Amino acid sequence: MTTQQLYNQIQEKKSFLSVGLDVDLDKIPKHLLELEDPIFEFNKAIIDATHDLCVAYKPNIAFFEAYGLKGWASLQKTINYINDTYPEIFTIADAKRGDIGNTSSMYAKAFFEDLNFDSVTIAPYMGKDSVEPFLAFENKHTIMLALTSNEGAFDFQTLKVDGKELYKQVLETSKSWKNSENLMYVVGATKAEYFTEVRKIVPDAFLLVPGVGAQGGSLSEVCKYGMNANVGLLINSSRGIIYASNGTDFAKKARVEALKMQQEMQQILSEV
Amino acid sequence: MTTQQLYNQIQEKKSFLSVGLDVDLDKIPKHLLELEDPIFEFNKAIIDATHDLCVAYKPNIAFFEAYGLKGWASLQKTINYINDTYPEIFTIADAKRGDIGNTSSMYAKAFFEDLNFDSVTIAPYMGKDSVEPFLAFENKHTIMLALTSNEGAFDFQTLKVDGKELYKQVLETSKSWKNSENLMYVVGATKAEYFTEVRKIVPDAFLLVPGVGAQGGSLSEVCKYGMNANVGLLINSSRGIIYASNGTDFAKKARVEALKMQQEMQQILSEV
Repeated sequence: MTTQQLYNQIQEKKSFLSVGLDVDLDKIPKHLLELEDPIFEFNKAIIDATHDLCVAYKPNIAFFEAYGLKGWASLQKTINYINDTYPEIFTIADAKRGDIGNTSSMYAKAFFEDLNFDSVTIAPYMGKDSVEPFLAFENKHTIMLALTSNEGAFDFQTLKVDGKELYKQVLETSKSWKNSENLMYVVGATKAEYFTEVRKIVPDAFLLVPGVGAQGGSLSEVCKYGMNANVGLLINSSRGIIYASNGTDFAKKARVEALKMQQEMQQILSEV
Repeated sequence: MTTQQLYNQIQEKKSFLSVGLDVDLDKIPKHLLELEDPIFEFNKAIIDATHDLCVAYKPNIAFFEAYGLKGWASLQKTINYINDTYPEIFTIADAKRGDIGNTSSMYAKAFFEDLNFDSVTIAPYMGKDSVEPFLAFENKHTIMLALTSNEGAFDFQTLKVDGKELYKQVLETSKSWKNSENLMYVVGATKAEYFTEVRKIVPDAFLLVPGVGAQGGSLSEVCKYGMNANVGLLINSSRGIIYASNGTDFAKKARVEALKMQQEMQQILSEV
């Protein structure tokens, strides 16, 4: 998918919501556990109930790997279901990968070819040759960690490197990499004032924004500082939507929460 | 496994070799491709031919994920085969994971519980709360990237943060984390002189050292600067051993290469 197609979808749906699929068997409604593939059934119900309100789904790969072979099968079924049923949706493999070149190539193959995701999240610590193998895929997107929404973000990301915070250095440096137009960045919502700084360095890139809702970030603040002429934001919510209820009405309640966010987004889009 | 058990194994085998299992279907002997699970069959043959010469196996998770569900099944069979047949061997899931707390917990569950690896490699960029969920597992080991062996290592890892290189800051900071005694570190062999600096900060920790051989690092140089009283080094070789031949004699040739390294290690151990 191209970023233009992603932007078109945002305009049509009046939404820039990404729904995170972090499916924990301990948290999903009990009645699903009797089914053959509870994780997939949960995802399918959530997707069917929310696909017109969001522009992206973000399966969190850890939550599939934790269930071994069964979990990987659920992941395959989930991504295939999205691609087959709602092909307009932008898909994000939240995997936080990154390794030496030949290994990154294998991860890129896993997520872009084998599973056919539109994008994958990656970590920057190993530098250029750990990221460029992902960037080589046409119309695929590599979403690199810049400034994350967790407490540990302050351990290294905000340390000063030559008078400039590390996350800014990461943003700056990545712009010189081959096919850097395929980069997007993770910037956490819990630090809305940082978006001004981020936009000085990457005015045009899409930013994937976790941390609205459960982690305390404000949607309007993020949009105020982070939105660009092409919106340029994908706001992710996981637990706030998918675990809105753990009863048989879970999908219906997930839709209610997704609708709240979509309406807030529609309001914001109408004002710019 | 405890580090004492790992050390005992090193003493018995007179080896601190880790064999990396980066199995690429394009590179393994053609006759294996006719079998039902070529990746597992390749690994099994390599393991049977080298288990008395090495103390660790390091499956590179990317190379399994690239083959989807089949790849994950090969990974399960490989780790089960090692644990069942050679339980004294230290196992390393080379996964380079790291995410917010609840997600890192799921990765830890995947590698430490579901697959029963002794250790997993992780990336430090997201800080303390992305690593501590791994450290919480008793007698399991978390091998954090410090200074890697690739070219991109110089993009961020060696930048000066408050007058000190980032990788040193990572080493220093990690020592204050809960259960930090379960930490080991990745330090690339291509920069042997850096080991002196690393040992000033983490004198006692085990270091996993990629980059000897194919990537140009020298074993004797690494040992000169990096070895401690308990050896404290796991030297990994992947391609140099497993792809020594792509004929039907591949396992035999892998043994020849592993033996060369073990003998060099035995010599070094006899001199200290």
